[in-house]
Amino acid sequence: MSRRKISVIGAGFTGATTALFIAQKELGDVVLVDIPQLQNPTRGKALDMLEASPVQGFDANIIGTSNYEDTKDSDIVVITAGIARKPGMSRDDLVQTNQKIMKTVTHEVVKYSPNCIIIVLTNPVDAMTYTVYKESGLPKSRVIGQSGVLDTARFRTFIAQELNISVKDVTGFVLGGHGDDMVPLVRYSYAGGIPLEKLLPKERLDEIVARTRTGGGEIVNLLGNGSAYYAPAASLTQMVEAIIKDQRRILPAIAYLEGEYGFNGIYLGVPTILGGNGIEKVIELELTEEEKIALNKSAESVKNVLGVLV
Amino acid sequence: MSRRKISVIGAGFTGATTALFIAQKELGDVVLVDIPQLQNPTRGKALDMLEASPVQGFDANIIGTSNYEDTKDSDIVVITAGIARKPGMSRDDLVQTNQKIMKTVTHEVVKYSPNCIIIVLTNPVDAMTYTVYKESGLPKSRVIGQSGVLDTARFRTFIAQELNISVKDVTGFVLGGHGDDMVPLVRYSYAGGIPLEKLLPKERLDEIVARTRTGGGEIVNLLGNGSAYYAPAASLTQMVEAIIKDQRRILPAIAYLEGEYGFNGIYLGVPTILGGNGIEKVIELELTEEEKIALNKSAESVKNVLGVLV
Amino acid sequence: MSRRKISVIGAGFTGATTALFIAQKELGDVVLVDIPQLQNPTRGKALDMLEASPVQGFDANIIGTSNYEDTKDSDIVVITAGIARKPGMSRDDLVQTNQKIMKTVTHEVVKYSPNCIIIVLTNPVDAMTYTVYKESGLPKSRVIGQSGVLDTARFRTFIAQELNISVKDVTGFVLGGHGDDMVPLVRYSYAGGIPLEKLLPKERLDEIVARTRTGGGEIVNLLGNGSAYYAPAASLTQMVEAIIKDQRRILPAIAYLEGEYGFNGIYLGVPTILGGNGIEKVIELELTEEEKIALNKSAESVKNVLGVLV
Amino acid sequence: MSRRKISVIGAGFTGATTALFIAQKELGDVVLVDIPQLQNPTRGKALDMLEASPVQGFDANIIGTSNYEDTKDSDIVVITAGIARKPGMSRDDLVQTNQKIMKTVTHEVVKYSPNCIIIVLTNPVDAMTYTVYKESGLPKSRVIGQSGVLDTARFRTFIAQELNISVKDVTGFVLGGHGDDMVPLVRYSYAGGIPLEKLLPKERLDEIVARTRTGGGEIVNLLGNGSAYYAPAASLTQMVEAIIKDQRRILPAIAYLEGEYGFNGIYLGVPTILGGNGIEKVIELELTEEEKIALNKSAESVKNVLGVLV
Repeated sequence: MSRRKISVIGAGFTGATTALFIAQKELGDVVLVDIPQLQNPTRGKALDMLEASPVQGFDANIIGTSNYEDTKDSDIVVITAGIARKPGMSRDDLVQTNQKIMKTVTHEVVKYSPNCIIIVLTNPVDAMTYTVYKESGLPKSRVIGQSGVLDTARFRTFIAQELNISVKDVTGFVLGGHGDDMVPLVRYSYAGGIPLEKLLPKERLDEIVARTRTGGGEIVNLLGNGSAYYAPAASLTQMVEAIIKDQRRILPAIAYLEGEYGFNGIYLGVPTILGGNGIEKVIELELTEEEKIALNKSAESVKNVLGVLV
Repeated sequence: MSRRKISVIGAGFTGATTALFIAQKELGDVVLVDIPQLQNPTRGKALDMLEASPVQGFDANIIGTSNYEDTKDSDIVVITAGIARKPGMSRDDLVQTNQKIMKTVTHEVVKYSPNCIIIVLTNPVDAMTYTVYKESGLPKSRVIGQSGVLDTARFRTFIAQELNISVKDVTGFVLGGHGDDMVPLVRYSYAGGIPLEKLLPKERLDEIVARTRTGGGEIVNLLGNGSAYYAPAASLTQMVEAIIKDQRRILPAIAYLEGEYGFNGIYLGVPTILGGNGIEKVIELELTEEEKIALNKSAESVKNVLGVLV
Repeated sequence: MSRRKISVIGAGFTGATTALFIAQKELGDVVLVDIPQLQNPTRGKALDMLEASPVQGFDANIIGTSNYEDTKDSDIVVITAGIARKPGMSRDDLVQTNQKIMKTVTHEVVKYSPNCIIIVLTNPVDAMTYTVYKESGLPKSRVIGQSGVLDTARFRTFIAQELNISVKDVTGFVLGGHGDDMVPLVRYSYAGGIPLEKLLPKERLDEIVARTRTGGGEIVNLLGNGSAYYAPAASLTQMVEAIIKDQRRILPAIAYLEGEYGFNGIYLGVPTILGGNGIEKVIELELTEEEKIALNKSAESVKNVLGVLV
Repeated sequence: MSRRKISVIGAGFTGATTALFIAQKELGDVVLVDIPQLQNPTRGKALDMLEASPVQGFDANIIGTSNYEDTKDSDIVVITAGIARKPGMSRDDLVQTNQKIMKTVTHEVVKYSPNCIIIVLTNPVDAMTYTVYKESGLPKSRVIGQSGVLDTARFRTFIAQELNISVKDVTGFVLGGHGDDMVPLVRYSYAGGIPLEKLLPKERLDEIVARTRTGGGEIVNLLGNGSAYYAPAASLTQMVEAIIKDQRRILPAIAYLEGEYGFNGIYLGVPTILGGNGIEKVIELELTEEEKIALNKSAESVKNVLGVLV
């Protein structure tokens, strides 16, 4: 038996923290990859977390590199690479820059791990996952985007705080895109199994939903410089764990739709069963009219971004 | 029953990562403190890691603040605040600047948690722990410095790599100060219980010891900008856990000596029993002549720094 | 800081397994108590699990004893003592025999731990929890019965198997008594947040509910000799953890009702918030007429047993 | 990716507890096997522990069966089957009865999992591991006996109690057979890296070694009926984990010797590197004359038992 191998592309805060979380759980060996100019810092981060392993009690090799050959035969590859939108940069510039990065990264990844499962975090995540899917030639079940695990994590945190209860007992449910395009299904969200609508007044719930939608921005504003990485890394790691351990978890993920929810040929956030083969199933739910409208809006927004791809 | 409470002073990478590790282990609620100018980033980091809690499955409140009142009734306070040495700065400037910070921090800490246990990471750690001890008025068992857990973690990592075995089966042993002043007791270091001297040639062991001594610098050089934080945070967390859970672990710590090893009135790295009351015992070992000389040198170096304190 | 202390009364399979689970999680030191005639086997079990601690990596003292003095100053006491119904024994005999055991145990427990929180597992659990409450003189928040965590654990297991998904994503909800008197609220039970009624046909759900009701009997029949202990011990441990770590979890528990759900002066299974003070709140839900009828029937059944107490 | 699969043959207390520990750690799916007459109790135990999974939060399928076909394609098979010595039974009867059981079990195991790794616990373990090795046709690296992990676990527990320190910081080292034939290498046993000989007087150490040798008997005497299972199960699980996660741990194991320590063609307890391929290396140590004599005596004792095999 040999260890599983997980590569994380992009060694910024999110990528590095994801590598740490994967190693802490002994899900496999970790290869942290960044561009040649950042090779030394990448190696430094990897070494630093490796040096935490005797104390934290995990066995996992962690290396930093700029050489994709080191990712050979990865079981899973997590892509966090990409630039953040800078002041003055148009959305289209952002999309096209990150698209270019996705293409380069994907090309290198599948060259060395032609059967891996890829999880994409880079924004705008629906379009970037689409790009990776097209570029990789992998089956749709093996190219997955992250957004819903993070969105619900934030929602669950806010609800647990509001009700002063354990986060373990709060569940949340979202469809559609990330952030502004998120379609929260509050009627499928609970505390201890009790629908939130029975525990909190509608106005308060609306406020919490609004705060969730802008949860990424809230952190950006507080940090002043940079964006969230702990919760995103935890979310990616949960998806990696579900696959490595073939847990068949029901998790929201950005999946390629071919007819589900009435959409075709786009990546969109939907509930899925995530297991050893990646997305093993897209779960279809009956939606209310209101929810359908919101989901359509979210899909339109995704399509608009897809239109920008070159 | 109420939760334990741990405050972490200094919300840089090490402080923030320590807060995360403490929360992940559900050791208690965490208050992350930094200066008023950094209040928002501190709050942002705390919120981001709190938002990871539903996914990682831990219940711990984590707040960021610049108000020491929020640390009231902490069981343990970890001090990571302080500046790093900058190019052109003399060692004395560094010492005196950090001494000033220690004094301010300690004053605030004990005002709100007069019975807490304090763990210090700030460099030069022997002198800074001494400063906190004097300023706090706490008994010596409740003011502790970290260095040996980190030094041995690095040593263990290098040995495990060299022998291609699990980090879980390598132990290391150091006395004296941090880094250059570290006195490694290789004869008390083992892989699976087998003395390392039987497993590796002396020259290779010497190289690994040398690499351990400069382990902090190795990370600094690789990162290019900043210093290690994963392994230091893991080390601090292990000490916090030993105290919170009253584990009575044998861990190296910087302890106030009153006669042990022939030293009086200084803080120096020695093996201790760490439990619910802080340092419950300093373990005295017979040393070889060579080790005695090295430890004296290390103590001299600590005394030199103490002489710089104002 | 000193360790928490948890005593487990009754060193049969459930009591012993509970002691093990508590120690594995390092929730505190454990005292396993049984009658003087069983003192040696009790000590043997405690020693055997203690000898597992270096390998499993937990620090917890575990002792076996027949002397209640050893339980002094327990934070929590779990009562698993009592006899199982034997062939030819009337229900009233069972109730009165276990009532007598509860009285003796409670007397000894509160003598040495006058401020502890007590969790009762002994059947019939509603009446036995009532007996312990009356005998102990403790506030109602500090005397709690277990049944719903176990019932929902079985329900969740069966649903996860049926849907071939992770147990982590299935939640269940019950009210009322244990076993036959269980009032399952399937409309508050979900897989990945999706109401089970949307995922499984009603008939299949009914079958699973029926299997859950007789879940204890299913194990008894399979074992041939003895009853379930792994899942009951896990359930007790979850309640202990919620209290020790002050998690404020929403868990079903047998709570003393004073007006809630229209009942007064009886112990009945209801959703609660379980935290550092024991039952911190009974959560009241609107019930359908059908559910009300079922809950009344469950309460009648509890009252009938209370009528047998001497 | 699919889950690892571990089969445990023998569903007595040790086998069942091993299945539980493996599942708790999510090392893979578990198949618990016993004879057809015990099929129902075996299924009952498996179902009970599966019903603990939602509460303890592990995803692992656990089944009980008497059909070896269910073990198909196991990665690891743990053999705990066999009878214990009964009053009036000669040693030779015990050996030959268990040898017969080993042959039957091994035949069935390799029929369905021709490439598995087998770990044997059945006593007399050296001879039973030998029997399984011969019967299986597997390479020596894939047939391993357990004894030293358990022996050192007991030794570590007693030392930690004696010194009132964490079990995490005590290591022990044994060679040779189980129990009476154990050859403890106290000079390779430490607390916090400090040789025990420096911490405890020789007489006290001798007493603790003597207690360790008869550690199994101590539990048998206390229980009155049956033998230890928590610590043996923990020990087996640690070996399973080392292999499943390819940890390359240095653990004592019963290994087939071909020249090591001067022995040929017998199974004997020696330090090994345990990883994804089973025993990856036997570590040879220089022994003192006294240790050599003790190890020879232990080997003689093993050979005597081998002579009884039919």
